[in-house]
Amino acid sequence: MSLSITPYELIYWPGIPGRGEHVRLALEATGTLYTDVAKSDPGVAVSTIQSLVADDAGDNTSSSPAGVPGNPPGLAPPFLRHGDRVLISQTPNILLYLAQRLGLAGAGSAPGDGDLGMYHVNQLVLTALDGLSDEAHDAHHPIASGLYYEDQRAEAKRRAENYRGERLPKFLGYFERVIKGNEERGGKGGWLYGGGLTAADLVVFQGVDGIKYAFPKAMGKLEASGNYDRVFALHKAVAGLPKVKAYLESERRAPYGMGIYRKYPELDDE
Amino acid sequence: MSLSITPYELIYWPGIPGRGEHVRLALEATGTLYTDVAKSDPGVAVSTIQSLVADDAGDNTSSSPAGVPGNPPGLAPPFLRHGDRVLISQTPNILLYLAQRLGLAGAGSAPGDGDLGMYHVNQLVLTALDGLSDEAHDAHHPIASGLYYEDQRAEAKRRAENYRGERLPKFLGYFERVIKGNEERGGKGGWLYGGGLTAADLVVFQGVDGIKYAFPKAMGKLEASGNYDRVFALHKAVAGLPKVKAYLESERRAPYGMGIYRKYPELDDE
Repeated sequence: MSLSITPYELIYWPGIPGRGEHVRLALEATGTLYTDVAKSDPGVAVSTIQSLVADDAGDNTSSSPAGVPGNPPGLAPPFLRHGDRVLISQTPNILLYLAQRLGLAGAGSAPGDGDLGMYHVNQLVLTALDGLSDEAHDAHHPIASGLYYEDQRAEAKRRAENYRGERLPKFLGYFERVIKGNEERGGKGGWLYGGGLTAADLVVFQGVDGIKYAFPKAMGKLEASGNYDRVFALHKAVAGLPKVKAYLESERRAPYGMGIYRKYPELDDE
Repeated sequence: MSLSITPYELIYWPGIPGRGEHVRLALEATGTLYTDVAKSDPGVAVSTIQSLVADDAGDNTSSSPAGVPGNPPGLAPPFLRHGDRVLISQTPNILLYLAQRLGLAGAGSAPGDGDLGMYHVNQLVLTALDGLSDEAHDAHHPIASGLYYEDQRAEAKRRAENYRGERLPKFLGYFERVIKGNEERGGKGGWLYGGGLTAADLVVFQGVDGIKYAFPKAMGKLEASGNYDRVFALHKAVAGLPKVKAYLESERRAPYGMGIYRKYPELDDE
């Protein structure tokens, strides 16, 4: 490790992929140096997050041992710390920061576009997080994230049915269109934007991956329909990138469990 | 109007403030030249949006008369068109674009911070949209945005109770902390970030404003508690900015109705 490199520090809950996984994938796919306290010391990860998000944590993150003065506090993890001055939160915001620095923002793919690629990729990242992460979560927690699933099972059954039948196909169809159109816009076939891998591809990969785990029957039918071949091919292509493949096969990749993507058979197709 | 100025074009549904209102407020608060097809020609607004988001709209927005080649399609309005080359969607993404160009990104407020203000303001914008817009909407539509309220009234009652009692105070408390801390971080008292108005203040303003309309009793109690004085003062301060005040008093400001913020008394406190 060169002294001139400031490693990125991911601060997220231990034990689940969760929202932190999007940050991990951006770092892993680019072979970037980072620390991951959830893996290196789960107990410290929990206490660090608690100090950063506590209601009575004070007025500034500097009151937390993990805080960095000058940065507004965050409401929830993931957090990304980068050196002595940067501590930011909100998954799409962290991805915006990393994409700009790790070559995942589609820059250079459309000559003369200036910073337009940053906004295009950000738009796709936000939409993928909405439809393939947040709504997948709300399918099992439609009433309150603070209540147990068992206390909102009836409502979850209704919401999951709508998600499988309406929302999920809508989002998959959208990304199918985006991939198809990218080539016509002068980009590289198979990817969402521009000439290669961006943060948006990684978020769609993780969303499809998690939803395949949570709703195997519904996703099996959607895949078999042939209507979303490009999206499923993108999932496979990202999984096959050498650095991503090595990560997915490592112990660093947490198994799905009680996070965003949960396997409740009663919420899946019959 | 100088020929050298390229006006911003907001494309959003007519008749409701909705997500488009965040874009309008950024443009209005800065006295920026823009067109607003929802106001100038509601019929054209609807047909334009339909052509931009249609499932069979083709692979590229260029197949829509409103499209701009080179931009990936969007899933939903608001859209922002800027000149011959830029067409972007996703509310926080449009605000990121505008904040950078209209001086609403907190730039210059912390000397030596480079582009850090952009990420800080984006973080606050995203959190305000999550808690004061999306979750306020889901309080009356917890099962499916495509179903009528009447078909999810029982579930809405449960979700709204959780929103009023848990989520809303959590978000208000967070922004109270952010405002309080900004002064300690060297910023200007009363604002969320840096030396003055940013896009984040405008989103919090609109969220508080809409929630006051939708949940007048719950918000009355929260305001009377004295725990969120800075947040309510920020709402008042933004409303009192001369350009914002003039806008709010104009016909351009759409009344609340059947959009994000809805007044269903059975979802409010007793």
